[in-house]
Amino acid sequence: MKKIQFADQKQEFNKRPSKIGRRSLSRSISQSSTDSYSSAASYTDSSDDETSPRDKQQKNSKGNGDFCIKNIKQADFGRREIEIAEQEMPALMALRKRAQGEKPLAGAKVVGCTHITAQTAVLMETLSALGAQCRWAACNIYSTQNEVAAALAEGGFSVFAWKGESEDDFWWCIDRCVNVEGWQPNMRINCIMLSKAGKLCVPAMNVNDSVTKQKFDNLYCCRESILDGLKRTTDVMFGGKQVVVCGYGEVGKGCCAALKAMGSIVYVTEIDPICALQACMDGFRLVKLNEVIRQVDIVITCTGNKNVVVREYLDRMKNGCIVCNMGHSNTEIDVASLRTPELTWERVRSQVDHVIWPDGKRVVLLAEGRLLNLSCSTVPTFVLSITATTQALALIELYNAPEGRYKQDVYLLPKKMDEYVASLHLPTFDAHLTELTDEQAKYLGLNKNGPFKPNYYR
Amino acid sequence: MKKIQFADQKQEFNKRPSKIGRRSLSRSISQSSTDSYSSAASYTDSSDDETSPRDKQQKNSKGNGDFCIKNIKQADFGRREIEIAEQEMPALMALRKRAQGEKPLAGAKVVGCTHITAQTAVLMETLSALGAQCRWAACNIYSTQNEVAAALAEGGFSVFAWKGESEDDFWWCIDRCVNVEGWQPNMRINCIMLSKAGKLCVPAMNVNDSVTKQKFDNLYCCRESILDGLKRTTDVMFGGKQVVVCGYGEVGKGCCAALKAMGSIVYVTEIDPICALQACMDGFRLVKLNEVIRQVDIVITCTGNKNVVVREYLDRMKNGCIVCNMGHSNTEIDVASLRTPELTWERVRSQVDHVIWPDGKRVVLLAEGRLLNLSCSTVPTFVLSITATTQALALIELYNAPEGRYKQDVYLLPKKMDEYVASLHLPTFDAHLTELTDEQAKYLGLNKNGPFKPNYYR
Amino acid sequence: MKKIQFADQKQEFNKRPSKIGRRSLSRSISQSSTDSYSSAASYTDSSDDETSPRDKQQKNSKGNGDFCIKNIKQADFGRREIEIAEQEMPALMALRKRAQGEKPLAGAKVVGCTHITAQTAVLMETLSALGAQCRWAACNIYSTQNEVAAALAEGGFSVFAWKGESEDDFWWCIDRCVNVEGWQPNMRINCIMLSKAGKLCVPAMNVNDSVTKQKFDNLYCCRESILDGLKRTTDVMFGGKQVVVCGYGEVGKGCCAALKAMGSIVYVTEIDPICALQACMDGFRLVKLNEVIRQVDIVITCTGNKNVVVREYLDRMKNGCIVCNMGHSNTEIDVASLRTPELTWERVRSQVDHVIWPDGKRVVLLAEGRLLNLSCSTVPTFVLSITATTQALALIELYNAPEGRYKQDVYLLPKKMDEYVASLHLPTFDAHLTELTDEQAKYLGLNKNGPFKPNYYR
Amino acid sequence: MKKIQFADQKQEFNKRPSKIGRRSLSRSISQSSTDSYSSAASYTDSSDDETSPRDKQQKNSKGNGDFCIKNIKQADFGRREIEIAEQEMPALMALRKRAQGEKPLAGAKVVGCTHITAQTAVLMETLSALGAQCRWAACNIYSTQNEVAAALAEGGFSVFAWKGESEDDFWWCIDRCVNVEGWQPNMRINCIMLSKAGKLCVPAMNVNDSVTKQKFDNLYCCRESILDGLKRTTDVMFGGKQVVVCGYGEVGKGCCAALKAMGSIVYVTEIDPICALQACMDGFRLVKLNEVIRQVDIVITCTGNKNVVVREYLDRMKNGCIVCNMGHSNTEIDVASLRTPELTWERVRSQVDHVIWPDGKRVVLLAEGRLLNLSCSTVPTFVLSITATTQALALIELYNAPEGRYKQDVYLLPKKMDEYVASLHLPTFDAHLTELTDEQAKYLGLNKNGPFKPNYYR
Repeated sequence: MKKIQFADQKQEFNKRPSKIGRRSLSRSISQSSTDSYSSAASYTDSSDDETSPRDKQQKNSKGNGDFCIKNIKQADFGRREIEIAEQEMPALMALRKRAQGEKPLAGAKVVGCTHITAQTAVLMETLSALGAQCRWAACNIYSTQNEVAAALAEGGFSVFAWKGESEDDFWWCIDRCVNVEGWQPNMRINCIMLSKAGKLCVPAMNVNDSVTKQKFDNLYCCRESILDGLKRTTDVMFGGKQVVVCGYGEVGKGCCAALKAMGSIVYVTEIDPICALQACMDGFRLVKLNEVIRQVDIVITCTGNKNVVVREYLDRMKNGCIVCNMGHSNTEIDVASLRTPELTWERVRSQVDHVIWPDGKRVVLLAEGRLLNLSCSTVPTFVLSITATTQALALIELYNAPEGRYKQDVYLLPKKMDEYVASLHLPTFDAHLTELTDEQAKYLGLNKNGPFKPNYYR
Repeated sequence: MKKIQFADQKQEFNKRPSKIGRRSLSRSISQSSTDSYSSAASYTDSSDDETSPRDKQQKNSKGNGDFCIKNIKQADFGRREIEIAEQEMPALMALRKRAQGEKPLAGAKVVGCTHITAQTAVLMETLSALGAQCRWAACNIYSTQNEVAAALAEGGFSVFAWKGESEDDFWWCIDRCVNVEGWQPNMRINCIMLSKAGKLCVPAMNVNDSVTKQKFDNLYCCRESILDGLKRTTDVMFGGKQVVVCGYGEVGKGCCAALKAMGSIVYVTEIDPICALQACMDGFRLVKLNEVIRQVDIVITCTGNKNVVVREYLDRMKNGCIVCNMGHSNTEIDVASLRTPELTWERVRSQVDHVIWPDGKRVVLLAEGRLLNLSCSTVPTFVLSITATTQALALIELYNAPEGRYKQDVYLLPKKMDEYVASLHLPTFDAHLTELTDEQAKYLGLNKNGPFKPNYYR
Repeated sequence: MKKIQFADQKQEFNKRPSKIGRRSLSRSISQSSTDSYSSAASYTDSSDDETSPRDKQQKNSKGNGDFCIKNIKQADFGRREIEIAEQEMPALMALRKRAQGEKPLAGAKVVGCTHITAQTAVLMETLSALGAQCRWAACNIYSTQNEVAAALAEGGFSVFAWKGESEDDFWWCIDRCVNVEGWQPNMRINCIMLSKAGKLCVPAMNVNDSVTKQKFDNLYCCRESILDGLKRTTDVMFGGKQVVVCGYGEVGKGCCAALKAMGSIVYVTEIDPICALQACMDGFRLVKLNEVIRQVDIVITCTGNKNVVVREYLDRMKNGCIVCNMGHSNTEIDVASLRTPELTWERVRSQVDHVIWPDGKRVVLLAEGRLLNLSCSTVPTFVLSITATTQALALIELYNAPEGRYKQDVYLLPKKMDEYVASLHLPTFDAHLTELTDEQAKYLGLNKNGPFKPNYYR
Repeated sequence: MKKIQFADQKQEFNKRPSKIGRRSLSRSISQSSTDSYSSAASYTDSSDDETSPRDKQQKNSKGNGDFCIKNIKQADFGRREIEIAEQEMPALMALRKRAQGEKPLAGAKVVGCTHITAQTAVLMETLSALGAQCRWAACNIYSTQNEVAAALAEGGFSVFAWKGESEDDFWWCIDRCVNVEGWQPNMRINCIMLSKAGKLCVPAMNVNDSVTKQKFDNLYCCRESILDGLKRTTDVMFGGKQVVVCGYGEVGKGCCAALKAMGSIVYVTEIDPICALQACMDGFRLVKLNEVIRQVDIVITCTGNKNVVVREYLDRMKNGCIVCNMGHSNTEIDVASLRTPELTWERVRSQVDHVIWPDGKRVVLLAEGRLLNLSCSTVPTFVLSITATTQALALIELYNAPEGRYKQDVYLLPKKMDEYVASLHLPTFDAHLTELTDEQAKYLGLNKNGPFKPNYYR
């Protein structure tokens, strides 16, 4: 039985009217849902239309009005952004082509709660091409590209999202997205709001732990976005700069490699001796933060930990030191400790604050300690393509699996599917895979079509 | 006698009223003076004030009105930008400090014609601190940061410049800058408009050929700005991309090194066998453009040559190929050849055009073939610091040299001064220079204070 | 009960007199035990003493004669080599110091079957310092450093090994090592000869799969040894050379990174799409071997597979092409296919053969297709230090574990011990580890002393 | 008149009998002529034949005895080494082919005084193919490959050289090479012994300052030989090692780039602020030697200066620190200061000394402070090919130039010829040069065939 009941969640939404309950819930999610988020395409956002979308009555050119967005007139611009994104999402386009005949998601009713960007639009339109019906809300109050939302609404999708939602708007949109008469969702993508509330009752794939996604979202993506984020906010020259990177996991490795290549002198801090030894072998001095904090020009946190850069360190930084966070949440820099009377904050550019000490020393804080790569750079479409393809394949697997294979739990994507996602992206690079001969496959004890590595391989 | 006559130039300006004469002159300069130019700080430019600055009567807070800028009220914002720039221009700040007692430019009257940015302001205020009087106009109709011009005017400088000048405005500003009653300029910075017209009659330093400036403006600066320019315009992921770089001089070397480090596969074209062999040894395949043009994702010109990328190549590029220019002028890509009826141009973002072939193929042209690093990225302040310091030192040398050392010609900056500029920038990196012992200096036949290399050393 | 019976093995050895049985066994092990092996210290090997060690009667200075080696007089030279090795094996030296008081291996009787090198000697002397008694034989007929064996014998160790053993010598040595009156071994290191024969009946640690060892033996070690091995055998210049690396696992990644850094143009072949995509993102063209085989200067196999480079490819290589193997065995290059009448073999240097085609084309085959890094370069002592420390810790863990924790099986080293090995090597780099605060450990849900990562982390 | 008189030199040689005169001359040359020199091919040198070549009567297979070498029977082995060298000297082979018809050196009588290696043999045989007669002596008492000398003698060349000459042998060989009845040399290669004595009276090209040679001999060659030299002598692992490189000219740049790529942490010392700033921008900490001398694992000198590493620094190095010299002479490390009674020297391997302090600290001194890349690694044939080709072309230019173009002086190789040498080496890399169109050549003001850069271009 594939119909998955969302009734409980609906109840949950309906039950959220009391102020206190909502606050405590929203507090627990506020970190990600209110992170600022930059997108390259928000060119038409300077509109002076101050009317709340909730108060507007809009319809698309076919008369459909089951959506709530900023301005349906921006659809053409959004369509162009989607077309640009399609260029770098070849795997989803290939999936569409392959699935033209069969409709592996026919009958699927998908609710999604993600950043609403051109890349998400490509995913949604792929799911639709595969036979699914989709309704969508934003997972972040700042991250919606209004034009893209317009293009989706114009294309018949029920989208409830705009840039700059209030907290109340945020929940209203999710409610509108999920609770609709006569439409019972049976699949979901990233509806983290629900799962966080402990109401996860459908099987789901944990696409975040797939090898492909991990390497790309962390190592390869951060290798580029650390440079991009720092340049767009501060125009800093990297050559000769002294940088300390806190944490040498995949994110830290990417940051360190990029900055070293650009001529920075990079120091690393670590708690894990294995990662520490890797940093040494890769040519980085392993230090404690207090040993270099006075001399560095840039401090980057990539630990996933909390209070890595505390006030004590901020006090000892030199004038002009740049501080930013590339880790998993906004806890790594103790920004709250800077909200004291003797320090002056000056917003010098979007996402850039100068925190000024009584003696005139300025520390340059980026994105108020939130994720730099989400706030101040763009995520390459190609990386998002890998994530989106993985999500689409996970839905197909779940929807078509023999009954009983997946229970109401979270599963790791099968290795073979992970490899399939990778293989779909190789043509982008005109990359030619070698095939095993029968003799070789036998020698290695492998199936010629994979999987080629054990599940734990990273 | 240090007074340098500008009389002839003035005559020249006075003689420019006939339309034809001016047009032919302006044509010869249009390439650089109308190149688009991005700057990080133009946040307040969206003002709707459409009045021409020439029609306004503005005064600064001290009642001085000898300037012509967009809006004196933007002075505070401009001051902050200048202060930020000062942080990365330590050498000029050091010069100011050293010259507080003596005033090596006392009596100097300097006219300047440059981009008017925060970095230029730091230079101007340094010249002023050294004793000089300055009047300034813009060398480019787009490049003025209006807020900075306002801050300079508020600080007492006679500035004549705003963003978006017409050609007529441009010449009017230069005229107002130079021709003023009772003020006879005796020094100049970059007044390239005059020298191009063949009227150079004061000694000048060719600061462009100094080692320090060359390496920084080309190799080190381009290593960063190629990444920055491509990211800001296209958000392209570099990993795995195939790129062809035309030309392996300093600019090409910088571009290649950066892209290789980011995981791109880079091909190089060259005409000079020596540079070609260097490309080979640095690990790049040396090809002719036609051998790889069908397969590459990005084409970058760095030759200083003309018609390097012609229509024939543009016709054969693959869908989505990005084309841009990092070389010395806008001649490298034959953009004119794309202005034909069968091709559609679509401006998708600022500085980004999609040129669309009848079969739907899109080529992504950046900055219409003008310099990517000027148009679509920012030049690091530190690089500008080196240039500006070199200019300041050149002025001091010229102004204080014994009579007869410099005639009305262009001179190469003495090697020792080049080394001095470099040494002023070392403290930024907390870099500690080693000093020769007497014995070593004798062994090498060098003065302990330099110069350490022959003039031709690069 | 920690006494582990080796009775069965003894029987096995005693049972090996029939020619057929021995041949089939020896065939199964011949690959590794007869691989050639270079060592930096074989300077005194050119002795003309042709007497077989088995026919000599030697005693050390204390009158002990329970060993069989080349020449006890070389002990001084060997001692110096051991002392040099100690410098780069700080972790074992630290273990010795910590265990001076307690003797965690008191009562342990260890038999070892490994390469007998200076580094092995440091391990053996460490085990001895920890309380163990050791008897040792060589695992390879070529790899023994005779001087080191002499120093060990002089120090009281029962060593049975010399460089250039015959197959019969090889088994004789193992027999003498294990079968001794009144001495019952209860622990073993790498006695792979026995385990291959299916007679493994003591618990053992699989130290090969520890993270630390894997990364060091593969990625970091191969990054250096590929350059070293190629240089020592061919003096080839890397700059500008076209290289194809077959396989992009850890070994391939190390080879590719090193050659790219030295200015080679590197192509990669892969069967696994995930590794293939990583190669793309790291800037390597992913090809099939037949696409580049005509143009490359160097072919390197790192697959662990068989028949990767077959005669068909060897026929198509260009004159002077170098072919070598960095993978796990000698099966990757089909060397047998080159033993045909029309091809001439010419041994031009040690480990270097020119295979000459009828048209005069020469292919340069290194180490006859065996492992280049074992045959033609030295393994850095530091890498061996990590392996040896891991082995020592594994012995301590096994020997001191509560009864029942380990059965007669192969175990993975506990993560925490893996991290401990890493931490023992950090002081070599003057690397300073950061410690978690109580608050941070709680936030992350970790013990402050580790383990810091899940077991599957790589 | 092309006949160039060597009469004076002959007098000079005849005049050298007085002991004092010779000693003072030999002292001035001893640095280079007695530097140790490693070569890959000296495998047959362990012959026990102790007879001095001067006392032997040898003839080649054609009955010719006008040579003096170690052992004519080694000719076959030498021939093979020469054939291997030919593979990586494509430009000389191309020259041979082009000059088969015309003989541009017909009538030339060339005396040479160089290292006598396989690569020199390829040069000599090329000169011969171009029509010249050659006589040769060694420029260094250690550097002769005896087998190659044998192959040359067998081929009819008059060679006077062997490995391990005494100083008296050295001068005897040069005398025999130059002073022969009825044969008057009119050209010379590198007969530095004569020119150093102030008797240079024929025009010569300074091939050392050609761009191609400089970049290859310094930057590209040292990038590889620093790794090779360190590995062959010490087997040190580079990853994580702290290294200080003294001097950031071309040699230093090559060393730093290689070590950084291998994962070392590299510090740089410099006296020239321009090179210092480049080091900063390339990502190296610029320090004074005393700031890091206690912590580094390796010290490398590349300055061309004297007493860069003095006893004071050697005293403060840590145990096991490796010290070596890549600069221009053996003066950089004050080795003499280590010859004091309290220090013990221990020769642990060829070219490797442990200098032992009273407290047991060992400093590892390589090649006794002489050039590491000459002593302990091989110079890639490809680099020597560039030098040799340049020499051959210089001879052709000098020999065929219209009378009067070159006087008895030293000339810089014309830029165009420099470019020609480079172009001859491009096919090795399958590199395809782009040709200027007529329009482009005109635009740039260049001849389509070069030269493409001014003479001072580096």
